[in-house]
Amino acid sequence: MLIVQKYGGTSVGSIERMKNVAARCLASQRQGHQVAVVVSAMSGETNRLLKLVDEIHDDHNDREVDVIVSTGEQVSVGLVALAIRKAGGKARSFLGHQCKILTDSSFARARIVDIDAGPIRDAMAAGEIAVIAGFQGVDEKGNITTLGRGGSDTTGVAIAAALKADVCEIYTDVDGVYTTDPNIVPTARKIERISYEEMLELASLGAKVLQIRSVELGMKYAVPIHVRSSFSDVEGTWVVPEDAAMEKVTVSGVTASRDESKITVEDLPDQPGIAARMFAPLADANISVDMIVQNQAYDGTTDLTFTLPKIDRKRAVDLLKEQVPELVGKDGERVVFDDEISKVSVVGVGMRSHAGIAKTMFTLLADEGINIQLISTSEIKVSCVIARKYAELAVRTLHEGFGLSLPASERTGL
Amino acid sequence: MLIVQKYGGTSVGSIERMKNVAARCLASQRQGHQVAVVVSAMSGETNRLLKLVDEIHDDHNDREVDVIVSTGEQVSVGLVALAIRKAGGKARSFLGHQCKILTDSSFARARIVDIDAGPIRDAMAAGEIAVIAGFQGVDEKGNITTLGRGGSDTTGVAIAAALKADVCEIYTDVDGVYTTDPNIVPTARKIERISYEEMLELASLGAKVLQIRSVELGMKYAVPIHVRSSFSDVEGTWVVPEDAAMEKVTVSGVTASRDESKITVEDLPDQPGIAARMFAPLADANISVDMIVQNQAYDGTTDLTFTLPKIDRKRAVDLLKEQVPELVGKDGERVVFDDEISKVSVVGVGMRSHAGIAKTMFTLLADEGINIQLISTSEIKVSCVIARKYAELAVRTLHEGFGLSLPASERTGL
Repeated sequence: MLIVQKYGGTSVGSIERMKNVAARCLASQRQGHQVAVVVSAMSGETNRLLKLVDEIHDDHNDREVDVIVSTGEQVSVGLVALAIRKAGGKARSFLGHQCKILTDSSFARARIVDIDAGPIRDAMAAGEIAVIAGFQGVDEKGNITTLGRGGSDTTGVAIAAALKADVCEIYTDVDGVYTTDPNIVPTARKIERISYEEMLELASLGAKVLQIRSVELGMKYAVPIHVRSSFSDVEGTWVVPEDAAMEKVTVSGVTASRDESKITVEDLPDQPGIAARMFAPLADANISVDMIVQNQAYDGTTDLTFTLPKIDRKRAVDLLKEQVPELVGKDGERVVFDDEISKVSVVGVGMRSHAGIAKTMFTLLADEGINIQLISTSEIKVSCVIARKYAELAVRTLHEGFGLSLPASERTGL
Repeated sequence: MLIVQKYGGTSVGSIERMKNVAARCLASQRQGHQVAVVVSAMSGETNRLLKLVDEIHDDHNDREVDVIVSTGEQVSVGLVALAIRKAGGKARSFLGHQCKILTDSSFARARIVDIDAGPIRDAMAAGEIAVIAGFQGVDEKGNITTLGRGGSDTTGVAIAAALKADVCEIYTDVDGVYTTDPNIVPTARKIERISYEEMLELASLGAKVLQIRSVELGMKYAVPIHVRSSFSDVEGTWVVPEDAAMEKVTVSGVTASRDESKITVEDLPDQPGIAARMFAPLADANISVDMIVQNQAYDGTTDLTFTLPKIDRKRAVDLLKEQVPELVGKDGERVVFDDEISKVSVVGVGMRSHAGIAKTMFTLLADEGINIQLISTSEIKVSCVIARKYAELAVRTLHEGFGLSLPASERTGL
């Protein structure tokens, strides 16, 4: 098999742990596999570098910031390659400009355009373990770029796709993807298999195990992803194409996100084009708006409510005041916002063939006296915005209510 | 003018100091000059990285070690470029593979083969200050290389040569090159002008202000080098082609090196080819032998004494035992070594036209009761190996004896 292994910051957080990574890579190679390994910066390193940057300049969207922060992974690949050699193996490190991982020129959040996997294939053919720097790439002009936080997952899956690897193993400090946050619900269970679509919803809803873009890439190129612990040998969670077996399970997981805010603009004229005018300044400023709900108009006016990342809330309100004062009032007097919200969601491909998930969810929350402020649904998820103080209660209630504390085989659907 | 400025580790040792560097670069640019700046790693950073390496592997001659340690300069160029921009200027960083500084593939001690200064020229033409990573290069295959300790000086002068710059300013934490170490002799004086040849001798003899290879490069390409402090505006020391004015001064400086050892092999057969056989294993292992003295043969046998870097002494003795047991004895019983030595030297182009420097030196040392163990001379220097405990006394004695405490204009030759 051809295996790509990706190790996160805690997995390479010390020289001891790097030796552990080296041992794992070599064990895979000795089983007869070809191995390429993608590594992150040692935990804490990227923050250390960004702190240096912040002493000068607090904008991280900058060519030079990518030059600086990409060194974290550069140090890691060198050390891991040395550790593999010290353990008796052969290894060679690859930086973004050596692989080569071609990206666009959007510093701090570049997207991978192409990977020339030739040098990696050559190294593996020579019996070497290819040790590839995660998170970084190079643009057409040879400028160093980075892929954004968690970008090493994306590098891992992209390399796996380019090499047509049999699996991309994502090693982390937990042993897989859980039905919900085990810190909140002790009976949370590790999910054995999950579809890309479900994983995407879980990832974007706050399960921090895998970066969203890496799941999208995995789905696009059908790369099987195995999320597992670098500290044990137990099987983790396989993220794979949807298959028939999965449909037996109605709900795969429950999540709560706590880093969003809610903005409501009241008394808007009920006319065509209002929403477009309202969201144009936010889109221009690259602020991602998530749930949008517009009330039924009453007396010719309506309310518009939406959620957005909490860190963008202040900027968004300022932009609205500046650019659409005719909608929000010159001092933003029609704008109401709330930072104390949580979005709880249930996710599962089984929803497609099972009616009533939403109804059950609303009932379970109502039974606990939890008021629902906003609702949004997709084919495989239902999300409700509630007051933040109820988030943990809601997650526990939904996890129990949908039977997720039972092994998947024993769940009875609804 | 086109000015290349090189800043060492202490000059960029903190964000505050980097802001100072940025201000200096901009001041030069505002005077109408084109400015390229070469920076080292923040002080302590290279050692921090090598400590990580040492936890795995203590050989620094390794492709991966260069990948790791080159990140120190990478972080510096990014931060300095940001600091220049924050101060209102325009700047762009260049790594070894972007400049591009082509080297051979001798990791940890690569030599520069060529520099493609085009991208730097383009940046300067666009009004940008080019901020270039010192110490690093790239080989033909795109592997990252480093130039060895102090390699940023070499980068600075090489960039100045490639750009045909008017001057290469080497900024450091002292304000120039001194007649001897001011920590040993408080009356040491700053040298205003010194020839490349003298600077070479001073550099190789222990004055740590400039790396030897940078002086060689400066001489080869006639780049005027100005060694000065990054913390003040006073003129430093100019390293320039030898000129008539210099010949008035007999001795320019006195140095003491403390990082050498002495090895003697006794009772060698007095036959042709012995020295060649003895030094072959050391040359193969890339150990630089410095002074070599062979005694007049007596009874068909002779002794051979040489000095070498202290860190190589153990390896050298082991190599001799292994590879030429017929010369040194199977257990090295004919080898005697001494780590407690110092090499004191007087340097000056004026020696060419003044006889008697050596004699004066021997007399001055003898008057203090200091025994001379080995002597070696070149056209512009005399070196004596003495017991290390006398090193400071010897330097003070020679500095006074040759009148170096007086201003150059008041010295009376011998």
